[in-house]
Amino acid sequence: MTSYTDIEYEVNDPVAVIRLNRPEKLNALTYHTLGEIRDAIERAKEDPAVVGIVITGNGRGFCSGLDSQTLTEVTSDGGQSRRASEDPNALKGMFSYLLEVPKPIIAAVNGVAAGGGLVLATMCDIRIAATEASFVTIFLRRGLIAEHGTSWILPRMMTPGRALDLLWRSERIGAEQAKELGIVEFTCELDELMDRARGYVEEVAATSAPLTVGETKHLVYNHLGMGYREALEEADTFQWRALERPDATEGAQALVEKRAPKFTRLGQGGS
Amino acid sequence: MTSYTDIEYEVNDPVAVIRLNRPEKLNALTYHTLGEIRDAIERAKEDPAVVGIVITGNGRGFCSGLDSQTLTEVTSDGGQSRRASEDPNALKGMFSYLLEVPKPIIAAVNGVAAGGGLVLATMCDIRIAATEASFVTIFLRRGLIAEHGTSWILPRMMTPGRALDLLWRSERIGAEQAKELGIVEFTCELDELMDRARGYVEEVAATSAPLTVGETKHLVYNHLGMGYREALEEADTFQWRALERPDATEGAQALVEKRAPKFTRLGQGGS
Amino acid sequence: MTSYTDIEYEVNDPVAVIRLNRPEKLNALTYHTLGEIRDAIERAKEDPAVVGIVITGNGRGFCSGLDSQTLTEVTSDGGQSRRASEDPNALKGMFSYLLEVPKPIIAAVNGVAAGGGLVLATMCDIRIAATEASFVTIFLRRGLIAEHGTSWILPRMMTPGRALDLLWRSERIGAEQAKELGIVEFTCELDELMDRARGYVEEVAATSAPLTVGETKHLVYNHLGMGYREALEEADTFQWRALERPDATEGAQALVEKRAPKFTRLGQGGS
Repeated sequence: MTSYTDIEYEVNDPVAVIRLNRPEKLNALTYHTLGEIRDAIERAKEDPAVVGIVITGNGRGFCSGLDSQTLTEVTSDGGQSRRASEDPNALKGMFSYLLEVPKPIIAAVNGVAAGGGLVLATMCDIRIAATEASFVTIFLRRGLIAEHGTSWILPRMMTPGRALDLLWRSERIGAEQAKELGIVEFTCELDELMDRARGYVEEVAATSAPLTVGETKHLVYNHLGMGYREALEEADTFQWRALERPDATEGAQALVEKRAPKFTRLGQGGS
Repeated sequence: MTSYTDIEYEVNDPVAVIRLNRPEKLNALTYHTLGEIRDAIERAKEDPAVVGIVITGNGRGFCSGLDSQTLTEVTSDGGQSRRASEDPNALKGMFSYLLEVPKPIIAAVNGVAAGGGLVLATMCDIRIAATEASFVTIFLRRGLIAEHGTSWILPRMMTPGRALDLLWRSERIGAEQAKELGIVEFTCELDELMDRARGYVEEVAATSAPLTVGETKHLVYNHLGMGYREALEEADTFQWRALERPDATEGAQALVEKRAPKFTRLGQGGS
Repeated sequence: MTSYTDIEYEVNDPVAVIRLNRPEKLNALTYHTLGEIRDAIERAKEDPAVVGIVITGNGRGFCSGLDSQTLTEVTSDGGQSRRASEDPNALKGMFSYLLEVPKPIIAAVNGVAAGGGLVLATMCDIRIAATEASFVTIFLRRGLIAEHGTSWILPRMMTPGRALDLLWRSERIGAEQAKELGIVEFTCELDELMDRARGYVEEVAATSAPLTVGETKHLVYNHLGMGYREALEEADTFQWRALERPDATEGAQALVEKRAPKFTRLGQGGS
């Protein structure tokens, strides 16, 4: 796939940017949009020129969730047709595959993130929110449950009580409150948003070995679901593997020589 | 059971209120009190007029924990008689069954919550604290461990270090500090406390489908003990079930028609 | 072992103090240092005069992590020789054994805690930081992963996003920011640091039964990796055991008699 209709995709080493591009719908998601986002993420994952990925929205909204027409279609047949088409072995959840992409994924939240849009934001690793951004769960207002992993990730960003409160009342919260709650890591003015997001990836690329960035992402998410004994075992296995790689020697030499290290890029081929 | 001696129970759709009513003992808990609370919770659970439950204390205290005479009796025989009377298959812990009640339970904390009173407050889903409220763990001061699930829930409300600190030093903390730490979601003046607590349940009732409120509560607590793969599987199962229900169609239609949705109530019979 | 070269060890009932003592290297860790720390911890664990342990650094630094010469040696042979010498059944991780010591361990962080020094600080139970203290992960800058349990403990001190941010960017953060993030429980002036750390242990010793302090530590760390059903089972088992001990009778009696309780000390023999 070389051109998209619902998103824009652009790579400038070391950053890939995905822009949701249905601004008149506040970037609501159709199944076609979901397919394009997944395809772009796959390209970014395989591209060694990409150290990190930024996801943002064109226009006033970040992402208003599942398109209302799509939602009506899904609920009218009880989700039967959609469910039948899913791969039973795949990781469940609309954007949960982002947790397993071994590159940093930054949500540059420019406006409202609602329902599926909140799922998208919370399945990214880092959220930078413009002062115009807002967040709302909306699911239960539609007769639906906390979907697609929000019941897992929200109580790890905040207390269980605050997570339940956001899910039960569907209160819309602003960027600063979202930062206090733990949903957002950084806030800035809207006109600085893309520079901040790109700058974030550039800083990670200049600092850390991409292989270890991805492995550390895996360890952090995986260890949220296990005890310390098991987590220490897995970290130990990854540690010895890292010590055997040229990046570790390079890191130690760069330290001794007081210079910036040059690390291996991650990805199988060009875009 | 139609009348209680140690508590008061009252339902005004959509709220049930349980008031601990041994004010001269700061609402200390005897085994009789524990039985009455459990009975009232069962009634509230089964009552379709009840969307959410508020627990508060009459008088100066919220709940000062196990009655000192009861505590002396239990420790004097090493807990043998009490332990023998327990159902070995039941969920362990004094108030942990509250986690499995599929309705919001709000602690309206009017005064001190100590020991078993802290257990009661932390096993509720949302805590609204009057400025007069205070919290103290007290267990270790009595030669006891972090009992009844506090070792599980406190480090999910705050960092492990802060949880250990509260347990090890039995420091009494006020409402504002409890909010900063993550024990309390909302604070208010004492004379507004019951209005705030009732208003909270009314807001949830006006916003969200009761079935999904209960299922989301289950998902949040259950997912705190598992990894994302397993959590996503369970959320997916609940999601398809929700999509098949009339509440989901109603939610989507209400959205399109820009009106408040009318959702199914939860409970098997009247009170 | 009665004298150490890389650390100082001192006991004043109820506190043991371990001082890293290679100030000219900012207390960087060699394998010899690691062995001495472990030996001192074992002594403190067995000593009934020790209720809690304080770890601090002499000079400007707390601990700058693995000695650069040691790091170069390890990476030059891909960690082979070091790995071969490890006990395959032991808990993995440089300082993770501290999690299983049944006594409070307080990090009195006097200066920089970097890499392995951050591991040391985060594997302690409570961190008191002087205003001069700073924290930096550094691992990924060296081509290494989030090592020795940091991928497990950091996302339980803060949100997953903030943990990933600290690991990916290796930003150096000060004492106050570390407290906001959840790494540090208390801050103070440098000249008060050791009094505060000793005072902390003295307060725990005056308040709580040492056996229950250790058991509660076990429960808190263990329950971070499990669901509430399993956690409640384990807490219940520990609770009945505690109720059978003289400390529980003493706790209840002291309450009735309105006096300070006298609890059993923990440890097998003198130092």
